[in-house]
Amino acid sequence: MAEEDKNQVYRASTTAPVNIAVIKYWGKRDPSLNLPTNSSLSVTLSQRSLRTHTTASCSAKYEGEDSLLLNGKSEAIQSSKRTLACLSHLRRLRTELEATDPTLPKISGHPLRIVSENNFPTAAGLASSAAGFAALVRAIANLYQLPQSPTELSIIARQGSGSACRSLMGGYVAWRAGSKEDGSDSLAEEVAPASHWPEMRAIVLVVSAAKKDVGSTEGMQTTVKTSPLFSTRAKDVVPTAMANMEKAIRGRDFESFAEVTMRDSNSFHATCLDSWPPIQYMNDVSRAAVKLVENINAKAGKLICAYTFDAGPNAVIYYLEESTDLVAGVFRSLLAGAVGWEGAYGETIEASADVAQLDAKAVSTIKEGVSRVICTGVGEGPEHISTHLINEAGDVA
Amino acid sequence: MAEEDKNQVYRASTTAPVNIAVIKYWGKRDPSLNLPTNSSLSVTLSQRSLRTHTTASCSAKYEGEDSLLLNGKSEAIQSSKRTLACLSHLRRLRTELEATDPTLPKISGHPLRIVSENNFPTAAGLASSAAGFAALVRAIANLYQLPQSPTELSIIARQGSGSACRSLMGGYVAWRAGSKEDGSDSLAEEVAPASHWPEMRAIVLVVSAAKKDVGSTEGMQTTVKTSPLFSTRAKDVVPTAMANMEKAIRGRDFESFAEVTMRDSNSFHATCLDSWPPIQYMNDVSRAAVKLVENINAKAGKLICAYTFDAGPNAVIYYLEESTDLVAGVFRSLLAGAVGWEGAYGETIEASADVAQLDAKAVSTIKEGVSRVICTGVGEGPEHISTHLINEAGDVA
Repeated sequence: MAEEDKNQVYRASTTAPVNIAVIKYWGKRDPSLNLPTNSSLSVTLSQRSLRTHTTASCSAKYEGEDSLLLNGKSEAIQSSKRTLACLSHLRRLRTELEATDPTLPKISGHPLRIVSENNFPTAAGLASSAAGFAALVRAIANLYQLPQSPTELSIIARQGSGSACRSLMGGYVAWRAGSKEDGSDSLAEEVAPASHWPEMRAIVLVVSAAKKDVGSTEGMQTTVKTSPLFSTRAKDVVPTAMANMEKAIRGRDFESFAEVTMRDSNSFHATCLDSWPPIQYMNDVSRAAVKLVENINAKAGKLICAYTFDAGPNAVIYYLEESTDLVAGVFRSLLAGAVGWEGAYGETIEASADVAQLDAKAVSTIKEGVSRVICTGVGEGPEHISTHLINEAGDVA
Repeated sequence: MAEEDKNQVYRASTTAPVNIAVIKYWGKRDPSLNLPTNSSLSVTLSQRSLRTHTTASCSAKYEGEDSLLLNGKSEAIQSSKRTLACLSHLRRLRTELEATDPTLPKISGHPLRIVSENNFPTAAGLASSAAGFAALVRAIANLYQLPQSPTELSIIARQGSGSACRSLMGGYVAWRAGSKEDGSDSLAEEVAPASHWPEMRAIVLVVSAAKKDVGSTEGMQTTVKTSPLFSTRAKDVVPTAMANMEKAIRGRDFESFAEVTMRDSNSFHATCLDSWPPIQYMNDVSRAAVKLVENINAKAGKLICAYTFDAGPNAVIYYLEESTDLVAGVFRSLLAGAVGWEGAYGETIEASADVAQLDAKAVSTIKEGVSRVICTGVGEGPEHISTHLINEAGDVA
């Protein structure tokens, strides 16, 4: 190999998507390794609407320790065990690679400089850690030219943030809980690519002034420790739901997808309420969204949309493109003044005049409580891009 | 025996109390006999605040069928299987009694005329059926001079309305689920009389404009049929809670009473949310009440009050008399303009100036959402009274 130029700056960039679970991750069997009590399954959302963009770089000329600039703010990664776990795991893989192939530059020991930006405001109330850790792991894996598959990398991303493992691939992604103590079988697998069922759409109703009472890390530990109903969910309910959901996805059976999605969200929030002290993420606006989804499905005479709620009051409503008018059109009518109707997905949604048969109280609660929407759909996994957030000299671009 | 005067009108009157469960009844193993899936336990509330007053009468001169006038309105009891089941069971006992003791007047065949009045408005949002059926059964048992104990009569009242069986006695009352198919062991038992722990108080926060979405009869059937978490509650959670609650009551251990009460309420509502379609009785006002109870307990450094919610958004908050200032005083401060502070219990509650350390959002939600309170405490079972709602001629007084 050629002698390394000390001033050489190595760079790689990626974007990574957000995912929203339809079978929820709630509960860790090992908090330090982020090993879950049950498997989960999510839909990867299009990066045309939501994405994290990350550039990883390293250079012999960088001084000091690894650094991460997130949305313009320097992160204290040295005190983040989770970030450090990801970085050291990736570095170990690069070191092994360098040992195997002497032609590769010896960059594993260089300090890393990472810059990351989300294209969505914090106000969106979406957990950005999944996209963030997926992008971090993917960008460094690219930088290090690691041969590991997305599933292999998912084991690393999982240690950063559990649900991040599902953002390393597109489409419909399962996170297998695994049973090994070291977590080597707790990983993400593609159930189906986005192209298998590309018509899946989602609209997020962002609930105004939502203040999260209990963080999800703390909340899930409380549930595991105190909810007498939780183990039934983890042991019996979720395995059945996973099997039904995978079957629904493989068969593109939206009605089944919808029922399993809604019931799993309810089951998850039931175990939160059953915790001590109780945790309640859904509020009256969330409940109004449930009611409107029920109204829309009742009118259609079948399940054409499905709600799901993460650890907060925002409603994510899944539907198929063919039902855009009957589902998203209703919300566009009710929330004409909300932010978020622009963009690739939102632009195709027209206000549906037909909002009859909707519960009047739910309508007024939604109008009052939702001021932002996000329109999106199923999408691809992380994508290499050549737009770097760090320039050739190693400075923030 | 003397020959019966055909114009004789036999009368008996009683009052009966409301009860509020601290271990909830939710789910029937036999809907027609009102046999529950799990045992439950309630506190009988004082009749100084809430009561049903019922006069039962019968006479050879009454024409036609049995009749019931409830709050001035004639009830169609011939189409109410549950009322008919109670009446025929009581009549059978009287018939047996008459066969045993020939000196008794033969009144079992006479038409019954029953008049019943609640002293609380429907707007109070309290299930009146428990007090109503307890009063009905007790009044007719008095009229028929039945020797059966309250526990024996509870089997009859249970067929009218499940929770009515617990209103046949005062204090702290368990309804044993039983296991027999005919329901003969599904009955109420006194765990402790009111005199054992007379300091128990309750304040009900009546949530304005509460419209019940799903009735409890329908709701519990939905839960039994569809909630995957429900059987764990019925089989494992409630039996443990019952044992802990009985121990708490016997030992007058309020902290334990409070924790079991709150957790059981949460467990019950968790199984409602886990039903399909989901049932949500608690709303943001209910949640604000939970938050304020948490605030008050946190400030006290121990559990001095406990929330519980039935199949609706109203909060019932239990506390001991010694904590009146710290609990009820807070609500009197926040809800000074509400209806219901008059009466034996409410008059003793003074507005506590100290409402610091309360969650501001919960305070404003409670102020907005609650316009009526009910102040009460543990009380006695049904009481014979000589005030009849039917006069000697058999007419409504």
